[in-house]
Amino acid sequence: MAYQNAQLDEEKVFKDPVHSYVHVRDQVIWDLIGTREFQRLRRIKQLGTTFITFHGAEHSRFNHSLGVYEIIRRILENFTDRLQWNSEQRLLCLTAALLHDLGHGPYSHCFEKVFDLDHENFTKQIILGDTEVNQILTKVNPDFPKKVAEVINKTYHDKLIVSLISSQIDADRMDYLQRDAYYTGVSYGHFDMARILRVMRPLDDKIVIKSSGMHAVEDYIMSRYQMYWQVYFHPVSRSAEVLLSKILQRVKELHNDTYQFQKEPTHFYSFFTGEIKLEDYIKLDETIMMYYFQTWVDEKDSILSDLCYRFVNRKLFKYTNFHIKESMGDLFQLKQLFKQVGINPDYYLEVDSSSDLPYDFYRPGEEEERLPIYLQMENGELKELSEASEIVESISGKRRTDHKLYYPADRIKKLPDSQEKQQIKALLGMK
Amino acid sequence: MAYQNAQLDEEKVFKDPVHSYVHVRDQVIWDLIGTREFQRLRRIKQLGTTFITFHGAEHSRFNHSLGVYEIIRRILENFTDRLQWNSEQRLLCLTAALLHDLGHGPYSHCFEKVFDLDHENFTKQIILGDTEVNQILTKVNPDFPKKVAEVINKTYHDKLIVSLISSQIDADRMDYLQRDAYYTGVSYGHFDMARILRVMRPLDDKIVIKSSGMHAVEDYIMSRYQMYWQVYFHPVSRSAEVLLSKILQRVKELHNDTYQFQKEPTHFYSFFTGEIKLEDYIKLDETIMMYYFQTWVDEKDSILSDLCYRFVNRKLFKYTNFHIKESMGDLFQLKQLFKQVGINPDYYLEVDSSSDLPYDFYRPGEEEERLPIYLQMENGELKELSEASEIVESISGKRRTDHKLYYPADRIKKLPDSQEKQQIKALLGMK
Amino acid sequence: MAYQNAQLDEEKVFKDPVHSYVHVRDQVIWDLIGTREFQRLRRIKQLGTTFITFHGAEHSRFNHSLGVYEIIRRILENFTDRLQWNSEQRLLCLTAALLHDLGHGPYSHCFEKVFDLDHENFTKQIILGDTEVNQILTKVNPDFPKKVAEVINKTYHDKLIVSLISSQIDADRMDYLQRDAYYTGVSYGHFDMARILRVMRPLDDKIVIKSSGMHAVEDYIMSRYQMYWQVYFHPVSRSAEVLLSKILQRVKELHNDTYQFQKEPTHFYSFFTGEIKLEDYIKLDETIMMYYFQTWVDEKDSILSDLCYRFVNRKLFKYTNFHIKESMGDLFQLKQLFKQVGINPDYYLEVDSSSDLPYDFYRPGEEEERLPIYLQMENGELKELSEASEIVESISGKRRTDHKLYYPADRIKKLPDSQEKQQIKALLGMK
Amino acid sequence: MAYQNAQLDEEKVFKDPVHSYVHVRDQVIWDLIGTREFQRLRRIKQLGTTFITFHGAEHSRFNHSLGVYEIIRRILENFTDRLQWNSEQRLLCLTAALLHDLGHGPYSHCFEKVFDLDHENFTKQIILGDTEVNQILTKVNPDFPKKVAEVINKTYHDKLIVSLISSQIDADRMDYLQRDAYYTGVSYGHFDMARILRVMRPLDDKIVIKSSGMHAVEDYIMSRYQMYWQVYFHPVSRSAEVLLSKILQRVKELHNDTYQFQKEPTHFYSFFTGEIKLEDYIKLDETIMMYYFQTWVDEKDSILSDLCYRFVNRKLFKYTNFHIKESMGDLFQLKQLFKQVGINPDYYLEVDSSSDLPYDFYRPGEEEERLPIYLQMENGELKELSEASEIVESISGKRRTDHKLYYPADRIKKLPDSQEKQQIKALLGMK
Repeated sequence: MAYQNAQLDEEKVFKDPVHSYVHVRDQVIWDLIGTREFQRLRRIKQLGTTFITFHGAEHSRFNHSLGVYEIIRRILENFTDRLQWNSEQRLLCLTAALLHDLGHGPYSHCFEKVFDLDHENFTKQIILGDTEVNQILTKVNPDFPKKVAEVINKTYHDKLIVSLISSQIDADRMDYLQRDAYYTGVSYGHFDMARILRVMRPLDDKIVIKSSGMHAVEDYIMSRYQMYWQVYFHPVSRSAEVLLSKILQRVKELHNDTYQFQKEPTHFYSFFTGEIKLEDYIKLDETIMMYYFQTWVDEKDSILSDLCYRFVNRKLFKYTNFHIKESMGDLFQLKQLFKQVGINPDYYLEVDSSSDLPYDFYRPGEEEERLPIYLQMENGELKELSEASEIVESISGKRRTDHKLYYPADRIKKLPDSQEKQQIKALLGMK
Repeated sequence: MAYQNAQLDEEKVFKDPVHSYVHVRDQVIWDLIGTREFQRLRRIKQLGTTFITFHGAEHSRFNHSLGVYEIIRRILENFTDRLQWNSEQRLLCLTAALLHDLGHGPYSHCFEKVFDLDHENFTKQIILGDTEVNQILTKVNPDFPKKVAEVINKTYHDKLIVSLISSQIDADRMDYLQRDAYYTGVSYGHFDMARILRVMRPLDDKIVIKSSGMHAVEDYIMSRYQMYWQVYFHPVSRSAEVLLSKILQRVKELHNDTYQFQKEPTHFYSFFTGEIKLEDYIKLDETIMMYYFQTWVDEKDSILSDLCYRFVNRKLFKYTNFHIKESMGDLFQLKQLFKQVGINPDYYLEVDSSSDLPYDFYRPGEEEERLPIYLQMENGELKELSEASEIVESISGKRRTDHKLYYPADRIKKLPDSQEKQQIKALLGMK
Repeated sequence: MAYQNAQLDEEKVFKDPVHSYVHVRDQVIWDLIGTREFQRLRRIKQLGTTFITFHGAEHSRFNHSLGVYEIIRRILENFTDRLQWNSEQRLLCLTAALLHDLGHGPYSHCFEKVFDLDHENFTKQIILGDTEVNQILTKVNPDFPKKVAEVINKTYHDKLIVSLISSQIDADRMDYLQRDAYYTGVSYGHFDMARILRVMRPLDDKIVIKSSGMHAVEDYIMSRYQMYWQVYFHPVSRSAEVLLSKILQRVKELHNDTYQFQKEPTHFYSFFTGEIKLEDYIKLDETIMMYYFQTWVDEKDSILSDLCYRFVNRKLFKYTNFHIKESMGDLFQLKQLFKQVGINPDYYLEVDSSSDLPYDFYRPGEEEERLPIYLQMENGELKELSEASEIVESISGKRRTDHKLYYPADRIKKLPDSQEKQQIKALLGMK
Repeated sequence: MAYQNAQLDEEKVFKDPVHSYVHVRDQVIWDLIGTREFQRLRRIKQLGTTFITFHGAEHSRFNHSLGVYEIIRRILENFTDRLQWNSEQRLLCLTAALLHDLGHGPYSHCFEKVFDLDHENFTKQIILGDTEVNQILTKVNPDFPKKVAEVINKTYHDKLIVSLISSQIDADRMDYLQRDAYYTGVSYGHFDMARILRVMRPLDDKIVIKSSGMHAVEDYIMSRYQMYWQVYFHPVSRSAEVLLSKILQRVKELHNDTYQFQKEPTHFYSFFTGEIKLEDYIKLDETIMMYYFQTWVDEKDSILSDLCYRFVNRKLFKYTNFHIKESMGDLFQLKQLFKQVGINPDYYLEVDSSSDLPYDFYRPGEEEERLPIYLQMENGELKELSEASEIVESISGKRRTDHKLYYPADRIKKLPDSQEKQQIKALLGMK
């Protein structure tokens, strides 16, 4: 109890380019930031391979996590008049905000797909397991770690707290849109967060937005839409992700084939078996992965060596648009031709798909289900956003998907002339 | 010759948060950016350990190098009317700008001190050695690599080109001040670069500034001053540098003592002997170093393990002001006391000094000698900046130095009570 | 011819908060800026009564006109490789850009409605009439004024030039969205103009946008949409416009009734008769109007005096939403009640409607007809924007209208209690 | 008492480009903003004639006054933990901040000089006289107007309140530096106000700055220095001020000579006699002045007509540097020559001097005396800023003065050739 309410002698601040300053008064928050599990987030990039396309995007999840915390802190400050919360509720919100991304691995998106993992599960394990974070949370009170994990996992009984942390207009999204826009330097991603915070209201078990703030919310939704297509799904970054997947796939295969590595993938062993120890997970960050990739450039296996060389030195695959329905025949033919000219299509030909739902009012069963946005009209009535906004209505629930086919153009160009080469170039639209 | 003038089919641009866009039209520049030696700069942070203090400062030297190139490109665009240059001179400038930091190693400042290296020497080696960069430069013409190296080394005969790349108001400094301010988020570091570029003039073998731009230059000098003391010399970042030095020092000592490492420092071998092969140098970037540091947390040597744990997980030494003249006696006494309580002062007690000369008109023999800034008065006459500006005059040539003593406060606190502990705490001003 | 090509000895620049600098090299442009007709634009606010709501919006049409010129200048600079223009075509574009708003009167929107004028007609008159502007244009060549007027009037034969000046994504709109956002301080109005300029291409008689720039254009369209509803149609600014209209209407009526003014509206005489001399038009700017309004506060006519007091000292009418179809009966009843309590409904009750079409691909016959936006796909084919963009399609051609009823709440509150007062308050939803 | 504490039902906000939002909760503040005397500030430009040079600088004193209020509001919010103030003290601060510039007249600087007035005196008169502002303040309590006037006049007994409103780092200066930089678009004028507010502390009867904030304060002092020389004292704006003075001087002279005006300067009568009625002062704003200037362009007196034409249409005098000591002989000779060629030197030749003291620790008896800045060192001790900061020390107390001689170059050029003309041109350095 004493620890739960303990305040620092003097407020600490972090200079933050996005929110100007991040303010910390609670001893618990300060201590959590100092844990090795939280410091580890400095070695995980917020945007994975995006830095390959937007060189500014080298910022880490540490940055973002502080930002989400700060937004929640400001929201709670605005809510003080309206919310009769005890200090545990407040701390629960702040803590969940700070720790919500704790379980992210290196290049999460890709890594989770190849090894069939879920970072949310690891967030939970870090909070509940034998970690510095857990020690601190337990000191607050023995139930506290469980509560924090439940809020992040959206299963906590107090839905108001859950919706502060996870909704279609939560602190997580508001931070990353602005932060990623800032670091990439794109002109999208800006919206009037100060105004949105001013028109947010807690109402029973939800966060609602005063209807006078609708346009600011529209602007936020549009920012989100633009960031997805201009930044997050950029085809060049996806090319780097394709390489990454192929490397991990190759390493796994070689390991299963008892290939003799010069540099054994010891850090990956437990991922190959699927029985991942928490400590192994925590240890594997992006600097470790880069170490392996750089070392493997010198492996004898030419596929592994080539893929690693490409990833480390940005010799990416090229891409072409791919129409998933019409072009399956071409893809089949390309695979045959690749084999004939001695290029392994399992590693050198890949269709990557990106898909986004800019806003949805109802998505039960979706993996990334988030709560809809409600406007509170002047008469007090609630309206779901897409009912009130024509613009949002127009994009609401419309999934847009983009398919690209990735291939090693440089290698194809270097092939000796042959009919197959001509066919490959024609099918890929190469000049 | 053909290659020297080759233009891309379509201009390529990089989105840059500082300069909005970086524009590339020359095939040579495009090819240089694609080399492995240039891509390596993505794995070297521009500000070394500063990210420990300013979490936003995670940007790499790759970022900065593109920025310096872009500034020079704009300057040359402004100069087209005034400068009768051939295409080689132009390309020489652009190339030297792009490659000027190529030889930086991981956490350069610290690394160079411990192993007694000079990154400028490695820049030269990369340009002249057996590298992808050298192949491209040689394709321009066989003398070209040598010329580029000379420009960067400030020994090239055409002093106008040299002064574009290295002076007290060169593209290097203009980029890093703005870029580091942007990523850290501090409010210093801003000045009107557009105006400075507009008032720059080539004059014989110098770059001069039209006197009407004096205030913009004053603002730049002040920015520089503030960035040094607020960001670059921040005592917390220096604490991380102290740890880094101590780790490298310990590894070297253990290696010399034939200590049996669990993870041998193979990447460092040639640094221990001082006979550094270029390829070894290129391979050692910050991801590799972090791999070792993380692995060494599990070494048996308790000093190495502790120092690495501290660096990786940000358990830094604390600091206190240290008056180099008056306090030497105290330092001696502290070392004795440290030994008595079982803390090795060679690794756990360090005086770090930072020192800056905000502007100087004449610094012959200085390691980082840069050319003074000349204003061109309306009558055509040249005046050295500090003669014309009272503000600059007031800080010109005044070296300011700051000494701090670093120590492990956490460890001292955990010592059992003793007279020595009390004395240590008293001498360090610990509560 | 000599004058047409005359360049200033040294480029002049204007420091501009939106475009950083406005650059002038042509003597003709410099001379035009110096004319009294162009300087007059300093006394016409860009956003009329908007400053009443957004106190920052005090900027003038002078600002905006320089901005439009600067954008066109940059576009032409980008086009140099693609466009084989002679110097007259270039100057025609720049001049038309600079002068396009020359005929705006004080609080144009309102003023034109009350006196049934058209500022475009006055722009033409100023360009062709006996003015300093005309003298300069005639010096270029005798046909030049006519050509400039035709470009602004969209009747010029070279449609490429016309479309640079007037289309749905022209320099005019790009400047005012950004400028008005800057001065009001709202977070809308930002889009990546640098990118849009980079992807603009002249193609036959049109300006087209490379399809890779579609998202930047979407962002621009959204900015426009938000600015209209958040800033331009703000109900409080419209309240000030209602007052303004009522003042002008009252003055006209009093004048027709041969009312004896203490301060005769001499500057307005020719507007009352409808036979407006160009010189009278030029003389009537916002400082002159404010002089009259302030003086008329002391007129005996209580309506004129009250309306002027309200406008000068910001004692505005309140407003309520008004459903044009359902509420006409209420409006009729309110008018009756107003008369019964002694308030003249002709001056104290007004329905104001705002209406916007965010983007339209085809609006023949519209007063403000502008050309649609074409994207150039990778295969060279043109696509009208709303065909390619779902978001734009969703708002394309959808007119949105907002009706508000304005009334003097303060005066109604001060009425002695009566049944009529109660009825008025009920109908207006007053508390 | 009830009124003193009355809060609005819902907080009102003004969108402000500099501080993002200005927040108002107090009924008193809201009512004061609505008064005609405060609304009048919309018709007085913050920077007088500066808009002639920097076209963006069209913002009014209304803007700035809201900004100063907002800064004080934030400071008081920060102080809540440290300051045991009653509600009157708080309101006194806010009110004084809001109203501190209430007495400014049109183009104050110039106007006050010509008519020998002092705006601070009029601020006091408006607060204490028969005005809407006074009614509101009296409603707070009958002594309140007097207290507000005393705070603004720096004679109030509570020096802490005085120093919040007037010191070398007060809210007034912090607002105008940032605001004027924003509207002009210059890159100076930025400093980290958020940080300065964070390190401000009330201490007895002063505001002190924690020493850790010294660099932010240095930055502020430098901003101030740059803004003075780059913006406030810009020689082109001063040229417009010279015209303005000459117009007022001419009108006064004509009036004294019983010249028959077409448009009598009725608004100026009481200024000519020096017995200025408050109501006359309040009525004279910049729109009224511009009305007269525009009307007087048609006066028969050729000097008045010409000066007004010049001011209205920006046909300014040119300037040359003037060395006050060495050139007095030249000035005398020029005056003679002017008379000989028929140009009245009283109206067409003027030396204007600007002079600034960037920071001073002690200026007793200065007209614009402001309190020095104190740093609070870690040991609690106070240090005056220039003792702690080398940079500030270097410019502290150093008055810098600039003299320019203004003359009508256009008119001189049009003179028929003569020896006198040649002499004039030579003396003025005209080409």
